[in-house]
Amino acid sequence: MRLTDDDAWTRLAGAAHGVLSTVHATRGVDAVPVVFAADASNRGDRRVVIPVDSVKAKTTTRLQRERNLEADPRASLLVDQWDAEDWSRLWWVRADLRFESTIEPDARPDEWAVLAAQLAARYRQYAGAPFAKLLALRVAGLTGWAAGGG
Amino acid sequence: MRLTDDDAWTRLAGAAHGVLSTVHATRGVDAVPVVFAADASNRGDRRVVIPVDSVKAKTTTRLQRERNLEADPRASLLVDQWDAEDWSRLWWVRADLRFESTIEPDARPDEWAVLAAQLAARYRQYAGAPFAKLLALRVAGLTGWAAGGG
Repeated sequence: MRLTDDDAWTRLAGAAHGVLSTVHATRGVDAVPVVFAADASNRGDRRVVIPVDSVKAKTTTRLQRERNLEADPRASLLVDQWDAEDWSRLWWVRADLRFESTIEPDARPDEWAVLAAQLAARYRQYAGAPFAKLLALRVAGLTGWAAGGG
Repeated sequence: MRLTDDDAWTRLAGAAHGVLSTVHATRGVDAVPVVFAADASNRGDRRVVIPVDSVKAKTTTRLQRERNLEADPRASLLVDQWDAEDWSRLWWVRADLRFESTIEPDARPDEWAVLAAQLAARYRQYAGAPFAKLLALRVAGLTGWAAGGG
C-alpha cells in the first residue's frame, strides 16, 4: 500500500541509514550508502543532511557524490526495511532530492551547530562532530510503500 | 579498504537484497529495493537478474524501472551491510549495470528454468516461480569497499 506523505517522512526520519543515488555523466547513476539526518528545523522546510567525514574529506579532496551533485543537483535517498523471512513487513521510502548547498562550520556556525547536534544525537560515532562539511539537499518529493499486513 | 573484484562479486552474490538505481528523464534517478540473483551461468558472463512479480506485472502493465531501463540501459545495484553499533563491520558493493533483455518463460524456456531455479533456491517465497518476467542486466563494473577491521 502507498504511504501517506506524513507517514513516509516519519519513517525516513527514523531510519538510520539509506542509499544516496546521484547522476553520473557516463555511468548514468551512482549509488552509495549514507547516514543522514532528516531535518525540518529551517522554517519547516524538509531537508536531508548528509555528513562528509573528516577522514574522507582529507584523503580525497572532494567525494564523487559531491562532484556529481555540483554537476547535476538531482538525487534520491532510499531507505527500506528488509526482512528475509516475512515479506509482509517490507517497506521503503524514497525522497527525491535537490542539492542545495555545502555547509561548512566557519561559514554558517549557527546552522552547523543545530545540524551537528542532530547527527550526534542519532549516531554515537558522531559525538565529536568528526565531519568536515555537510551536504544539504531539499526534499522535492516523497514516495513510500509498505506491504500489506498479514 | 577497496575490495578485489572477486571479493566484491562474492559479496554481491551472497547478499539477499539491494537497491536498484535507474535513470529517470526528469527526476534524474529512481531507486527501489529489489531481490535478485547474481548469475554467471551463461559462459561465465556476470549478470544480475531481477524478477518482476506476477502480482505487480498485472496491476501495472510495466513497472517504472522497466520504462526507465528501456529508455536508458544504465543502472546500478548497491548492496551493503549496515551495523548501527560497529561501523568497522560496514561494507558495500556497487555493480554498474547495463540492461540487456527481458526474459519471459515462453520465449526462452531453458534460460528461464535455470534462473527461476536460482531465485527459488535463494528465496523460499519464490518456490512457485511467481513472477511474470525477469530483467537481465550485464555487470559492466564492480566497486566495493569494506571498513578496516578493529
